[in-house]
Amino acid sequence: MTKNPIVKGKLVCVALNDSEQFNAMQAEFSEAPYKSAPTQPVLYFKPHNTWSTDGAEVEWAVTEGQAAQSMVVGASLAVVFGQECCRVSQEEALNYVDGYTLVHDFSLPEKSYYRPDIKGKCLDTSAPVGAAVVPASDVQDPQALTVVTQINGETVNETPVSQMVRGVAELISTISYIMTLQPGDVIAIGFPGQRAPVKQGDKVSSAIAGTASTGLCELNNQLGQ
Amino acid sequence: MTKNPIVKGKLVCVALNDSEQFNAMQAEFSEAPYKSAPTQPVLYFKPHNTWSTDGAEVEWAVTEGQAAQSMVVGASLAVVFGQECCRVSQEEALNYVDGYTLVHDFSLPEKSYYRPDIKGKCLDTSAPVGAAVVPASDVQDPQALTVVTQINGETVNETPVSQMVRGVAELISTISYIMTLQPGDVIAIGFPGQRAPVKQGDKVSSAIAGTASTGLCELNNQLGQ
Repeated sequence: MTKNPIVKGKLVCVALNDSEQFNAMQAEFSEAPYKSAPTQPVLYFKPHNTWSTDGAEVEWAVTEGQAAQSMVVGASLAVVFGQECCRVSQEEALNYVDGYTLVHDFSLPEKSYYRPDIKGKCLDTSAPVGAAVVPASDVQDPQALTVVTQINGETVNETPVSQMVRGVAELISTISYIMTLQPGDVIAIGFPGQRAPVKQGDKVSSAIAGTASTGLCELNNQLGQ
Repeated sequence: MTKNPIVKGKLVCVALNDSEQFNAMQAEFSEAPYKSAPTQPVLYFKPHNTWSTDGAEVEWAVTEGQAAQSMVVGASLAVVFGQECCRVSQEEALNYVDGYTLVHDFSLPEKSYYRPDIKGKCLDTSAPVGAAVVPASDVQDPQALTVVTQINGETVNETPVSQMVRGVAELISTISYIMTLQPGDVIAIGFPGQRAPVKQGDKVSSAIAGTASTGLCELNNQLGQ
């Protein structure tokens, strides 16, 4: 089990925040039991045993005693809190951000968007959090950032933050009304709807593009065998 | 925000583990999208901001800027880990238990059993964990324990662990295959299906009955105004 120097309290992830995915799922949303699209952000946690770091090997999943047949990955811009943040407005939300980093979410492919898939999401070492934090003062507008992910050197996702259904400030505000965000908490604001399939031994690298600090925040991981 | 001396890593809770509730929900389980009862334990996390302790006041929930209309509580026997526990069998599971304590889970009433209700479950200070840990060596059989909860001195729940769909050893084994349990992790093994309604200012007390250590583990909390 690796350690991570950034995340100390909780790692909150936002599901279904890619507007391309969200729009493509309207038919599914209309089915029972909800019969409409979610009106609130859909959140899940990556618990303590998932936390890992830049450069670390990510364990290949074992399910029912056997190596998993497939895994997928998505990368997200992540917000790091350095102070307590409770019930803040959208307008003041960004004042609570200490900095920005990246989160890789490795998981089993999801079969259903109902009931967040604890089994698929809570794999040991499956949530590397970038070692570097870009100071909030270096980022004029987080909505102008783009997260780029490569697998073995080939670009598989290039996701502008502006493509998210809910933006950074809105998410911080909404989540701060649900639970207090504390120093050392991290929010992964949204992943590409199409998670990229990975194989054993693959190298996954993500970077934040579009800031003066480009290149200062990268996240590199390799899948175990 | 209060601190808790026991839980350090993750607090994993098991939903829908009361066999009375489980059996009563068969009709609901048969509906879309699942069309059958869950075959695996349904898990949720109480994150860092929820952790609280014996004797602490539990904040009355605020939703949409206003005091919540109602809250509910359930108590669960909880397993405390003192060593890493990864992919263990049912037969060896109890060897990994450091001791037993209690967890109060305060929440908003649930509207649906689909999609675990992050908003209702992640309220600040809503998960007091008992200050005392009954050493595993004092508990011959955790299945023989009963959790008793009183509100303002009136017994509202008396739930034998044997009434749970899945027992302590089975849960530890199953969960240890999903995610590694680490020192300072806690599993709340199951709550009464009928959560008890509470009002502002109510005093909620739970105890573990049925062990040589009876009375050594109590959990007392009062709701804030």
